[in-house]
Amino acid sequence: MSGSLFGKNLCVMTWGESHGYGIGVVLDGVPAGLPLSEADIQPYLDRRKPGQSAFTTKRNESDTVLLMSGVFEGVTEGTPISMMVKNNDQHSKDYGNLKDVYRPGHADYGFDAKFGIRDYRGGGRSSGRETAGRVMAGAVAAKILSEVGITVSAYTKAIGPVKAERLDLFAVGENPLYMPDPEAAEKAAEYLSELQMKGDSAGGVIECTVTGLPAGIGEPVFEKLDANLAKAILSIGAVKGFEIGEGFAAAGLTGSENNDPFVAGALSAECSTTTEKNIIHKKTNHSGGTLGGMSDGSPLVFRAAVKPTPSISSPQETVTREGENTELVIKGRHDPVIVPRAVVVVECMAALTIADLLLSGQGSRMSDVKAYMETVRERQGCQK
Amino acid sequence: MSGSLFGKNLCVMTWGESHGYGIGVVLDGVPAGLPLSEADIQPYLDRRKPGQSAFTTKRNESDTVLLMSGVFEGVTEGTPISMMVKNNDQHSKDYGNLKDVYRPGHADYGFDAKFGIRDYRGGGRSSGRETAGRVMAGAVAAKILSEVGITVSAYTKAIGPVKAERLDLFAVGENPLYMPDPEAAEKAAEYLSELQMKGDSAGGVIECTVTGLPAGIGEPVFEKLDANLAKAILSIGAVKGFEIGEGFAAAGLTGSENNDPFVAGALSAECSTTTEKNIIHKKTNHSGGTLGGMSDGSPLVFRAAVKPTPSISSPQETVTREGENTELVIKGRHDPVIVPRAVVVVECMAALTIADLLLSGQGSRMSDVKAYMETVRERQGCQK
Amino acid sequence: MSGSLFGKNLCVMTWGESHGYGIGVVLDGVPAGLPLSEADIQPYLDRRKPGQSAFTTKRNESDTVLLMSGVFEGVTEGTPISMMVKNNDQHSKDYGNLKDVYRPGHADYGFDAKFGIRDYRGGGRSSGRETAGRVMAGAVAAKILSEVGITVSAYTKAIGPVKAERLDLFAVGENPLYMPDPEAAEKAAEYLSELQMKGDSAGGVIECTVTGLPAGIGEPVFEKLDANLAKAILSIGAVKGFEIGEGFAAAGLTGSENNDPFVAGALSAECSTTTEKNIIHKKTNHSGGTLGGMSDGSPLVFRAAVKPTPSISSPQETVTREGENTELVIKGRHDPVIVPRAVVVVECMAALTIADLLLSGQGSRMSDVKAYMETVRERQGCQK
Amino acid sequence: MSGSLFGKNLCVMTWGESHGYGIGVVLDGVPAGLPLSEADIQPYLDRRKPGQSAFTTKRNESDTVLLMSGVFEGVTEGTPISMMVKNNDQHSKDYGNLKDVYRPGHADYGFDAKFGIRDYRGGGRSSGRETAGRVMAGAVAAKILSEVGITVSAYTKAIGPVKAERLDLFAVGENPLYMPDPEAAEKAAEYLSELQMKGDSAGGVIECTVTGLPAGIGEPVFEKLDANLAKAILSIGAVKGFEIGEGFAAAGLTGSENNDPFVAGALSAECSTTTEKNIIHKKTNHSGGTLGGMSDGSPLVFRAAVKPTPSISSPQETVTREGENTELVIKGRHDPVIVPRAVVVVECMAALTIADLLLSGQGSRMSDVKAYMETVRERQGCQK
Repeated sequence: MSGSLFGKNLCVMTWGESHGYGIGVVLDGVPAGLPLSEADIQPYLDRRKPGQSAFTTKRNESDTVLLMSGVFEGVTEGTPISMMVKNNDQHSKDYGNLKDVYRPGHADYGFDAKFGIRDYRGGGRSSGRETAGRVMAGAVAAKILSEVGITVSAYTKAIGPVKAERLDLFAVGENPLYMPDPEAAEKAAEYLSELQMKGDSAGGVIECTVTGLPAGIGEPVFEKLDANLAKAILSIGAVKGFEIGEGFAAAGLTGSENNDPFVAGALSAECSTTTEKNIIHKKTNHSGGTLGGMSDGSPLVFRAAVKPTPSISSPQETVTREGENTELVIKGRHDPVIVPRAVVVVECMAALTIADLLLSGQGSRMSDVKAYMETVRERQGCQK
Repeated sequence: MSGSLFGKNLCVMTWGESHGYGIGVVLDGVPAGLPLSEADIQPYLDRRKPGQSAFTTKRNESDTVLLMSGVFEGVTEGTPISMMVKNNDQHSKDYGNLKDVYRPGHADYGFDAKFGIRDYRGGGRSSGRETAGRVMAGAVAAKILSEVGITVSAYTKAIGPVKAERLDLFAVGENPLYMPDPEAAEKAAEYLSELQMKGDSAGGVIECTVTGLPAGIGEPVFEKLDANLAKAILSIGAVKGFEIGEGFAAAGLTGSENNDPFVAGALSAECSTTTEKNIIHKKTNHSGGTLGGMSDGSPLVFRAAVKPTPSISSPQETVTREGENTELVIKGRHDPVIVPRAVVVVECMAALTIADLLLSGQGSRMSDVKAYMETVRERQGCQK
Repeated sequence: MSGSLFGKNLCVMTWGESHGYGIGVVLDGVPAGLPLSEADIQPYLDRRKPGQSAFTTKRNESDTVLLMSGVFEGVTEGTPISMMVKNNDQHSKDYGNLKDVYRPGHADYGFDAKFGIRDYRGGGRSSGRETAGRVMAGAVAAKILSEVGITVSAYTKAIGPVKAERLDLFAVGENPLYMPDPEAAEKAAEYLSELQMKGDSAGGVIECTVTGLPAGIGEPVFEKLDANLAKAILSIGAVKGFEIGEGFAAAGLTGSENNDPFVAGALSAECSTTTEKNIIHKKTNHSGGTLGGMSDGSPLVFRAAVKPTPSISSPQETVTREGENTELVIKGRHDPVIVPRAVVVVECMAALTIADLLLSGQGSRMSDVKAYMETVRERQGCQK
Repeated sequence: MSGSLFGKNLCVMTWGESHGYGIGVVLDGVPAGLPLSEADIQPYLDRRKPGQSAFTTKRNESDTVLLMSGVFEGVTEGTPISMMVKNNDQHSKDYGNLKDVYRPGHADYGFDAKFGIRDYRGGGRSSGRETAGRVMAGAVAAKILSEVGITVSAYTKAIGPVKAERLDLFAVGENPLYMPDPEAAEKAAEYLSELQMKGDSAGGVIECTVTGLPAGIGEPVFEKLDANLAKAILSIGAVKGFEIGEGFAAAGLTGSENNDPFVAGALSAECSTTTEKNIIHKKTNHSGGTLGGMSDGSPLVFRAAVKPTPSISSPQETVTREGENTELVIKGRHDPVIVPRAVVVVECMAALTIADLLLSGQGSRMSDVKAYMETVRERQGCQK
């Protein structure tokens, strides 16, 4: 069955192998009239681009987005948006020694078991390079969200045992590990250098916050906001866990500790002038911004656990396609940690998920549907 | 948009409110020829039934499954299977004082924000009672899986701070908390009794293992097995986290620690007689049974974090629908912990997810499609 | 795979066999706040009920709708709406002689070839009785549409060779054949009586018009309005053709004959006072109300070709399940024509299709999405 | 919502505007191991290419397929197949005078009403050029089908009033109108030349036959084979009707005329030697190859009504975007009839529909699912 399709009303289809012609994506369902150009997308691609620090692979890809459809005179047309980055630096020969061997921790064995085909060139479709398609689409989703006041921001919460203790969003862009705590970033860099010397690798935790979401986004009971986020995030290679709000810690709390009281009152002075009604909000945010699978008006806060990069240079036990035991030494270009490059991928998958649910949920009230239809009729002239 | 639909080729649609006519489900896409009767389903419902121990709500529901379609002469027909349990014990008046108040930690506010409707009768659709529909469908999915040698088993891994240290699957059914460690179960019972006296509640962790899965189930890149499981599990009310294999712990490991070496060799003596080829398997299972989003031949092992029951009897700060601050005291029947009753729900959502992916993935190789078509033609007589 | 699911955002799942417990449907995605009760649905069921005239089967079913979920205090809650009619009059023994024989023109052989199961009791799931589920769901969709000024009306255009020459919508409900031409209705009745005496049956054509649709409903390029209508209508058993506007006749016209000129101007005096802009409309309606797969502001006009009822009482050649030639004489209750009872089914499938596309299409312009979000934020108090 | 997505398990997403970068498609869900190269696809594109006869537009496009992913070492990998043809000959300025005018019979008004955007360059996304994406994907689907013995063949049944009276499939490729009757083809050519001189255009009928289909393809009750074909065919621009078997003529037949008797017996001498069981087949094929929405073992035969090309050079009444009446004279390159070029599009949409249903339907019997799982386990070594 098709597995490269994501989203229900805002649909993404990605394509491409690590060492094929390129990596691409088609994004369908984008509302017409959104100003959009390559300049909106390139910065996202640049954040996941290899070769930017000592801790990312030295593969040399310009990863320049080519916008091929869906935009006319600077705005979206409501038609599918097709985007691509070409593959330039394809050292397929580096992978010759992997042709008949399954790399531990990689998708090789599963792909072969499923499809009976072994695209040994850098993992083929299972390469992290596949995420370039997600990022191009996610950049568009983020633009949609920004137009309605919603911001999605991810950062590195931990690298191996080194945790960010502070949350300074301004610091995130200032270090190559995208940590919101400069001191932690330094310690993490040291930790990675040590591992690199040993030919080993590290994992980490990515945290993502979303602000500006009104309450009610997400659909009970299966299309919950948190459930869809979990799927989106776990679909990223190397992610092994997802939690929202207190997450696994909530399992150890009591109800009186974990419940977030509601309070009514103005959020700020300027706000109180624009509405007579008191605003309902939560006093705390143990929930991480969802209740009953819908946004609850507080910021979303969720985390993804990323496993250590499976490509390590120290020798590993494994088997050949023919079922013979062997030892593997992986050569070629590999990141000692993929967490920093995965930050923008988490952000993009979250943006796609939220934009889809937001666009899908516009018909939740009959009164809103009526108002919409009146707008349409008004636009087209008089009709009952 | 529709949110009560789950699955792509094996589709579940659930319906029903806590205090309406009943709770039901339609399951479509079940292969024809599966022996099925109420006796396959009732034991699953009984495991989630209220009123079974000191730690579950005293609501008195017989929850007897009514099988309304899709089965003829004891086997499935390939048509939709409609099932229902009626609601008998509807103490709607217990909820009168909640009519205009949002309960902290519940879905009330989100539902009202989204739909502008407040079904205050036991939470309406957001009630845990909704899971009866999942369980009826999941029982059928589990039957499908058992026919092809796949077993799904969930149990309580932790209640609040009390963790199961042993994994004795025989012990699970012997204690009301479904823990695989009798000593931990006793400690957890004491912990819950204390909380109950304080009018407070607890959360916990549910672990689920799946055995008998061949490699290759799940679809790269968005319909991964682990991604779909994450969505399925997070769609259960009160679940705040999902992790597979090492999960969040993987973030702190190195690649050399976390990678699972492959080895070739007979799994057992009897096995070695049935195949000439050596069997490829993993030496360890840090991955939890998936690589690249597909099953890897090892058992699946994943966990869900369950938050403490939000309905507590101690007074809580909250607001009314009109935006006025108030204090809430919840009366009525409530579980001090929902983990034990959620165990079977986790199992059922896992069974539905796996059965769907298994049925969806039969066309992954052209050679298998050809073999299938030849079988069909053979059955229908000669045709080229 | 699941085949009993219809719709993308307004989703219908039907269930039930002709001689099982009942026939039911779950409709998910209905906006909250729609006034709804059994009284909205029963009249639709009554129109397809058997036993109402000399030309419909004498099966005695009360077909009283049971509304089981999704409505609270007289309005929809935004949750799934589950409805059912029970089967009362199940003469299964009538079908004993069909147990091992494939009826010509029926689905028996296909079901057996596909599923290996033969529910000989009145065709099981392939019975026309299945349409009761469509009608209950369609009645709700029609209610949604009526709230926004859209009306769907179907009628019998032809019975066998007898065509309605006039289009008097008031006459439709006045004759048991639902023809808009009383004289044609009389001739058709005579024609049917003759056939009935010969043990034979007739087909016919159903026409459906939809008024009040604004332009722009439907999604290029695959989810076109006419394409979705075609699928919906062809999914009704016995329908063998679909055409819109000039339909097959368009194949014989020239472009200058078939093109509909656009004109600008007030549609009526009252209209011209409510809008300053001139209204764009089509001078003719050869298109049948769609251009480029979207509604074009004119009424939708489409037709369905219905084949003659396959159950005839004259002897027919056929084969047994074992592949032996035999002669079949069908007993039991059967309609000499199903067209009149299918009229409401066509109407209901059209209503479901249009309501789904309308709800799905609300995000076609970024400016509308922004306006919606502002409404939501306004409702929840001040947030940027 | 997304509208450029087709198919459930074999999914197609097309993209591209008439005068943008190119026209492309991603096809996901193709089984691995299918031999595939550009040489399989190019001939299909060539059949729809403009500029091939006096009756097709003179737009000069090489339409050379670029295969960008999903194929490795000459076979499909089970990953998405991305294909594109670039746009070379973009005379956008030809369309300058259409910028603010709605062309009668075209999608212009609908697009503007829906999206508020007017891509006047050759109709943008609504151009017939969009079908290049369908054709590339359909060529792959046809290859899948040919591997399992299924052949899809379409041809021109009528041009305007000129009908093919003979069905000589060898003749189809011998005339530029793709008619199976050389004499009719000549008459049709004369008819078209006359119309062309008048600046007018013609419609026609396309017929399609599918051979080699076993019984049981298609899913009751909404995902019927004929229903899905109807949607696929009506989704092609300019198609106004669909019928299968007797189609609209069935409405005028009686049951005894329209029912197809079943007979048992060998289809041919060679066949009778390969099976002991007598083969069940239909004596006639009024049904057009489906019963109950599933294939019935006979060839599929269906027809599409194609309207006359709306772009005619004679002056037409219409309105501007501003709602002012005006007269329009269309310049530029246009086909006096699109039927011949649409033949391959019909074939491709049919192939996509059938391949999707075939791949989706492999789980209809529990016994087949078990057999499949045993094959998988056998392949992976011993496992229960």
